[in-house]
Amino acid sequence: MLFFSSDYQQACHPEILRRISETNFEGNPGYGTDDHCKTAKEKIKEACETPDAEIFFIGGGTQTNMLVLDTILAPYEGVISAETGHIQGHEAGAVEFTGHKILTIPGYEGKIRAADLRARLRAYADDDNREHTTPAGALYISFPTEYGTIYSKSELTEIYGICREYDIPLFIDGARLGYGLMSPECDLTLPELAHLCDVFYVGGTKMGALMGEAVVFTHANMPKHFFTSVKQHGALLAKGWLLGIQFETLFTDDLYFKLGKNAIDCAMKLKKLLIEKGYKLHLDSPTNQQFAVVEDSLLPKLAKHVNYGFWEKPDDTHTVIRFATGWATRPEDIDELAKYL
Amino acid sequence: MLFFSSDYQQACHPEILRRISETNFEGNPGYGTDDHCKTAKEKIKEACETPDAEIFFIGGGTQTNMLVLDTILAPYEGVISAETGHIQGHEAGAVEFTGHKILTIPGYEGKIRAADLRARLRAYADDDNREHTTPAGALYISFPTEYGTIYSKSELTEIYGICREYDIPLFIDGARLGYGLMSPECDLTLPELAHLCDVFYVGGTKMGALMGEAVVFTHANMPKHFFTSVKQHGALLAKGWLLGIQFETLFTDDLYFKLGKNAIDCAMKLKKLLIEKGYKLHLDSPTNQQFAVVEDSLLPKLAKHVNYGFWEKPDDTHTVIRFATGWATRPEDIDELAKYL
Amino acid sequence: MLFFSSDYQQACHPEILRRISETNFEGNPGYGTDDHCKTAKEKIKEACETPDAEIFFIGGGTQTNMLVLDTILAPYEGVISAETGHIQGHEAGAVEFTGHKILTIPGYEGKIRAADLRARLRAYADDDNREHTTPAGALYISFPTEYGTIYSKSELTEIYGICREYDIPLFIDGARLGYGLMSPECDLTLPELAHLCDVFYVGGTKMGALMGEAVVFTHANMPKHFFTSVKQHGALLAKGWLLGIQFETLFTDDLYFKLGKNAIDCAMKLKKLLIEKGYKLHLDSPTNQQFAVVEDSLLPKLAKHVNYGFWEKPDDTHTVIRFATGWATRPEDIDELAKYL
Amino acid sequence: MLFFSSDYQQACHPEILRRISETNFEGNPGYGTDDHCKTAKEKIKEACETPDAEIFFIGGGTQTNMLVLDTILAPYEGVISAETGHIQGHEAGAVEFTGHKILTIPGYEGKIRAADLRARLRAYADDDNREHTTPAGALYISFPTEYGTIYSKSELTEIYGICREYDIPLFIDGARLGYGLMSPECDLTLPELAHLCDVFYVGGTKMGALMGEAVVFTHANMPKHFFTSVKQHGALLAKGWLLGIQFETLFTDDLYFKLGKNAIDCAMKLKKLLIEKGYKLHLDSPTNQQFAVVEDSLLPKLAKHVNYGFWEKPDDTHTVIRFATGWATRPEDIDELAKYL
Repeated sequence: MLFFSSDYQQACHPEILRRISETNFEGNPGYGTDDHCKTAKEKIKEACETPDAEIFFIGGGTQTNMLVLDTILAPYEGVISAETGHIQGHEAGAVEFTGHKILTIPGYEGKIRAADLRARLRAYADDDNREHTTPAGALYISFPTEYGTIYSKSELTEIYGICREYDIPLFIDGARLGYGLMSPECDLTLPELAHLCDVFYVGGTKMGALMGEAVVFTHANMPKHFFTSVKQHGALLAKGWLLGIQFETLFTDDLYFKLGKNAIDCAMKLKKLLIEKGYKLHLDSPTNQQFAVVEDSLLPKLAKHVNYGFWEKPDDTHTVIRFATGWATRPEDIDELAKYL
Repeated sequence: MLFFSSDYQQACHPEILRRISETNFEGNPGYGTDDHCKTAKEKIKEACETPDAEIFFIGGGTQTNMLVLDTILAPYEGVISAETGHIQGHEAGAVEFTGHKILTIPGYEGKIRAADLRARLRAYADDDNREHTTPAGALYISFPTEYGTIYSKSELTEIYGICREYDIPLFIDGARLGYGLMSPECDLTLPELAHLCDVFYVGGTKMGALMGEAVVFTHANMPKHFFTSVKQHGALLAKGWLLGIQFETLFTDDLYFKLGKNAIDCAMKLKKLLIEKGYKLHLDSPTNQQFAVVEDSLLPKLAKHVNYGFWEKPDDTHTVIRFATGWATRPEDIDELAKYL
Repeated sequence: MLFFSSDYQQACHPEILRRISETNFEGNPGYGTDDHCKTAKEKIKEACETPDAEIFFIGGGTQTNMLVLDTILAPYEGVISAETGHIQGHEAGAVEFTGHKILTIPGYEGKIRAADLRARLRAYADDDNREHTTPAGALYISFPTEYGTIYSKSELTEIYGICREYDIPLFIDGARLGYGLMSPECDLTLPELAHLCDVFYVGGTKMGALMGEAVVFTHANMPKHFFTSVKQHGALLAKGWLLGIQFETLFTDDLYFKLGKNAIDCAMKLKKLLIEKGYKLHLDSPTNQQFAVVEDSLLPKLAKHVNYGFWEKPDDTHTVIRFATGWATRPEDIDELAKYL
Repeated sequence: MLFFSSDYQQACHPEILRRISETNFEGNPGYGTDDHCKTAKEKIKEACETPDAEIFFIGGGTQTNMLVLDTILAPYEGVISAETGHIQGHEAGAVEFTGHKILTIPGYEGKIRAADLRARLRAYADDDNREHTTPAGALYISFPTEYGTIYSKSELTEIYGICREYDIPLFIDGARLGYGLMSPECDLTLPELAHLCDVFYVGGTKMGALMGEAVVFTHANMPKHFFTSVKQHGALLAKGWLLGIQFETLFTDDLYFKLGKNAIDCAMKLKKLLIEKGYKLHLDSPTNQQFAVVEDSLLPKLAKHVNYGFWEKPDDTHTVIRFATGWATRPEDIDELAKYL
C-alpha cells in the first residue's frame, strides 16, 4: 500500500526515536523546564533570527490554534480567518469553545486578500453601532494554506502591514510550515516569515515528529502567565522534554528543512506525473498537497493500492482527490504510484 | 543523581519504544481509528472484565479530567471533589475553564468520606432554594489519591452506592492506578474497581508510557459525540495509534501490573528504610508516594544526590518531602538512597 | 421630534405602568414564583393553544437568544442561522461566548431557504470526517426577520419539517413577533406558529413592555433545571413578577395584538407615503420596519425633525434609512413625517 | 401579611414610578446612551466624590458580579472570596460559567480577615509550582455581607492595602450598600468606601428600584470595550434609560440614603423587640437583616402572618430565621410583628 492520504501516517523520523531512546533514563524535570526544551528553543530562535522570541511546545495543531488565539484575544474579541481556514471548518468549534467568534472573510484557494482584510477592519471602525459587534483581535492565516497554496513575500508584507495599522496581531498556522518554505515558488525564508508576523508555529506533527508544534512569539510577546494558560487548557505535557528532544533533532543539521524538501521534491514529481497522465489538477498547488480530478470509475482500482484523501465531488462522475507527500515519502513511491494512475 | 521527585521523570518502558520503532512506517490512519487502538481497547476491556466498556485514549491527566468532567456534566452542574483533589488545586482551573464549579468536601489524607458525600447531596435535595445553586452532576475521586492513600473495597462500594442512589456518575482519576492496585493494602482488583464506577482512567504517563491515559466508560456510557468533544477541547492526537501501541504494550503480558509492582516493592523498601533511619512519616502511604519529615539542615546534602519533591513546611525547622518511586525505579536505587539519609 | 429610529424608544404602554403602580406594595415572592407570572403564562398558553407549553420570562432579546441556544444545544453543537441573523452580527458574540459556533447559511432579505438548510444538514450527514466538525443542534430564525420580512405558513412548515427530519429543534426569535403576526401578508396565526417550532419567544421589549421576553417551550420541552441555567447566565430577575405583570397586561383584551396592529397600520401608511413621494424602497417589507433609499443631500434636514435609523450605503450619494413604527406610533406622526420627506 | 422575607418584595419607590410615567414618551435613545443615564452618573460620581469614576448600569446583582469579575480578571485568573460569599454559594455557578475559579478563604459572619487574605496571596507568591495553579486576579467582598455584617474603616483600609500591595483590584458587592452605610455602627461614608476599592456597585434592586445596580469603576478604570462585554454577556438593557431614571431619582434629595435609613431604623427597632421578647440572636447584625433563633413550634403561627426567611437549622427543635427590613418597611410593621413574636 502507498500512503498518500496525509502527511502524518508514519510515526516519526528515525533520528527522533534514536534520541528518545538515548535519553530515556536521563531523569528530566517535567513540563518543559528541561534542557532539551531550552536547547531546542535556542536553535529555533537562531533559525528564525528572532533573538527575542519566546517559544512554547504544544502537542497538536488544533490545541495550538485554540490556545494561541484564546490567549492573544481579549475575551470579547474575535479572530479574522478565511472562511476556508482550518479553525473555521475542521476543528470542531474549538475556537468558539473558548468563547471567541471567528470573523470570516473570503478564501481564494485558501488565501485571504489584503483588500478584504482591510475592508473588514475598516467596516468595524466606521460602524456607529460597532460596540454591539465583535471586534477583531487577531488575524489567522495558514502557511501553506489548507489548499497547499502559499503567500508571497509581498502579499504577506501587505497583510502584516494592515495588521499593524489596525493594531491586531497576525498569527500564522504553520502546521506544514516546512513544506511551504521548501516550495520552489516560495520567496520567503523562515526569518523573513518570522519577522512578518507576531506569532506562528513550526509544525512538527506533519513534519516528522511523533507530535508537537513549536509556538514562536516572535518578539518577547508571549502572553503573561502563558504556562498557566497552557495548563488551564489541558495542553501541558508532563514529559515536556519529549517535545524538546524532537525539535532539538529537527533543528539540528537542517533536518527540518531536509524533510520539507524531500516532500516537495516528491510532490513536484507527482504533479508532473499527474499532468503527463492527463489528469486535470483541481488547483495549482506549489507544496506537498496535490489535488487531481479523477473519474469515479478509476477510484476502486486506485484505492486497492493507494491511500489517498477525498477532497470533494465537483460533479456526478468525478472526484477531486488529494495526494499528500511528506517527510517519509520516497521518490520510488511516486514511481510505483505511476502504475496505478 | 537519584530520581525520586516524580514518577514521570523517565520517558517510557523500552518495550514501548521498541514497538514504536517496529511500527514506524506502517502507515496508520489518524485520530485513533487504527488497529492498535482497537487491540489496546480489547485488551483493556478484557483486563477490566467490562465487555461493554467504551474506551478513548487521551494525552494527559489534566486534559482527561477536564474532558471527562465537561462531557459527563450538564452545563449547569458541578462536580464534587475532595478539597485536596488534583482538579481543585493543581490543574490551573481547567474544570472551571470549561464552565463547571467544583463542589468541595473535606479530604482526609486525600480521601473523601461517604458521610460527607451523602450530607452534601442531601443538603442540596433538602434546600428549598436549591435551584439558585449548582447541583452536583458527578463525583470525582482519585485512586490512589494525591497523598498515596487508597480506598478499600468496602469504602468504594459505599461511595458508589451513594452515587447511584443520587444518580450521579462516579469518575475515578487513575493517573497512578497501577500503583494503587499493586499496593499490598489494596483489596480491589481492576475488574472490581471498574465495576464500582462509571468512568475511570488507566494512567499511562506515570506508569511507563511516553504519555497517555486510557479513559474507560465502563458500561457503554461514553457521552454522545465524544470524539467531537475531544477534538473541540483540543485533545485529539493526530497520530492516535501512538497511544494505542503504548496501551497495547502495557496490557500485554501484564506489563502494566509488573511496572506497578516494581514501584510498590521499591516504595515499601523505601518506607522500611525511612522508619529504620528514624524518620517520621508524614502519613502512612501504602503506595508509591512516601512522605518523610526531614530536618531542614539535612536537605542541602540530600539535594546534591537525590531528586525529591517538596511537599510542605510543617514547622520552621522541618520539611515534608515526597519520594515517588515508579516503573523505572531500581531496587538498588533505594540502597543508594540509604547512603544519603 | 418624530421617533422612528427604533421600536423601543418609549418606555411602555400606560396600562402596564398602571398595573405596576397598582400592585406596587403587594409583597410578591421573587424570581418569577409569583401569581402574576403564573397567570401570564396561562394567558400565553391559551393564546398559543399550547396547553403543554412551559414558559419563562427573560429580560431582553440577546439574553434570551444566548440562554435558549445554550440550553437546547449540546456543548459540542452549533446553531444554524442566516448569515444576516441577529445572533450572528449584532449580539457581540454572545452565542460564541457560551461556547457554541454559529453555522451560517445564506439569508435572502433575512430569510433562510429550506433548500439551503437541507443541504447543510445533509452535507454533515454525508461527511466521512464529520466528527471533526460542529454538528448542528438547532435552527435559529427570526419572525419577522431583521429585514422586516416574514415566513409564510408553507415556508415555515417546510423548514420545520426538515428540522424534525434531522431531529433538531427550531427556535424562533420573536423579538417583534406581534408586528409579524399582524402584517396583512402574514398567513400564520400565533397558535399555528407555536405549533411549527419547538421554542420561540413573544417579544415584549419592542412591543410595549418596559422590558421582557416570554420564552415558550411549546411542548413541555423546557430544558431540565432551566431556572438554574437562567441564574447561571445572570439572567434571573429578582423581581420576576414585574415581567409577569407586563405579559399579563399584554395578553389581556388582546392588547399585544392591538399594539402590533397599530404599528402595522402606521407602517403601511408610511410605506404608501414613501411610494407616493417617489422614494425607492430598499426592499418590500410587510411589517413595521420600512427601508427607503434617500439622497444624502436630504438627510440633514430630515434629521432635524425625525429620528430614523441608518441602514447602509448603497452608493456614494444615497443612504438606505430605516423607519420603524411601533406600539407607540400615532397615525398623525406619519402625517407629520410627510412634511419632511 | 407582613413582608420580612427579603428586601425586594415590593416593586419600587413611588417617586420612581412617577418619573417613569412622566418620561414615558420622551423617545430616548437605547442602551444607556441617553441623558438620564448621563445625569444619574454625574450624581453618583458627585455622591462618591470620584470625579474620574466610570459608571455602567446593570440589571441585577448576579449579572453584575459575573460581568465585573469576568472583565477585570484575566482569563486564567480566579477571584478570592469568603467561602460564604454570595458568588460562591448562591449564584448557580455564574462566575465559573465565565471560566473563573473562586478561591475561597474563611468567612467570619460573612467577613474575611486581612490575615487570611495575605496568607493566601503570599502562599501563591511563595509556591514554586504556582504556575500550575490559579492566580488571584481580584478580591470580592460584600458590604454589607450576606450576614448583615459590615467592615469598619480600618478593616477595609487594611484589606485594600493588601490588594494594592499584591496588585489585585478590590471589588465590593454593594447589593445592599445603602443599608450598610446607614448602619449606626458604620464608620465609613460613601466617598470613603469608594476610595477604598477599585470597583463596587450601588445596589438598586434591594434599595427601592424596580431593578438595577450602578457599577462604579472608581478611577477611570472601566475595562476596555466594557459596553461590548455587557452585550456579549446578554446584560445590555435595550431601554437603558429606565435604569438611568431610577438612579437619577435615588440620588436626588438623598433618597437613596433616606431609604437606607428607614430600613435601618426599622431593623434596629426589630432587633430591640427580638431581644426584649427573649429571642436569641443568631449573630449581632448592625444592618437590615436580623437573625433570630426560634423554636420550631412557634413557626406555623408566625408563618400565618409574617413572611420571613429560613436561614438554617442549628438543632432539631430550633430554626434560625431571617427578618429583612427594607426601603418599604413601615415602623408600624414592626409594631404589628410584635404581636406574633
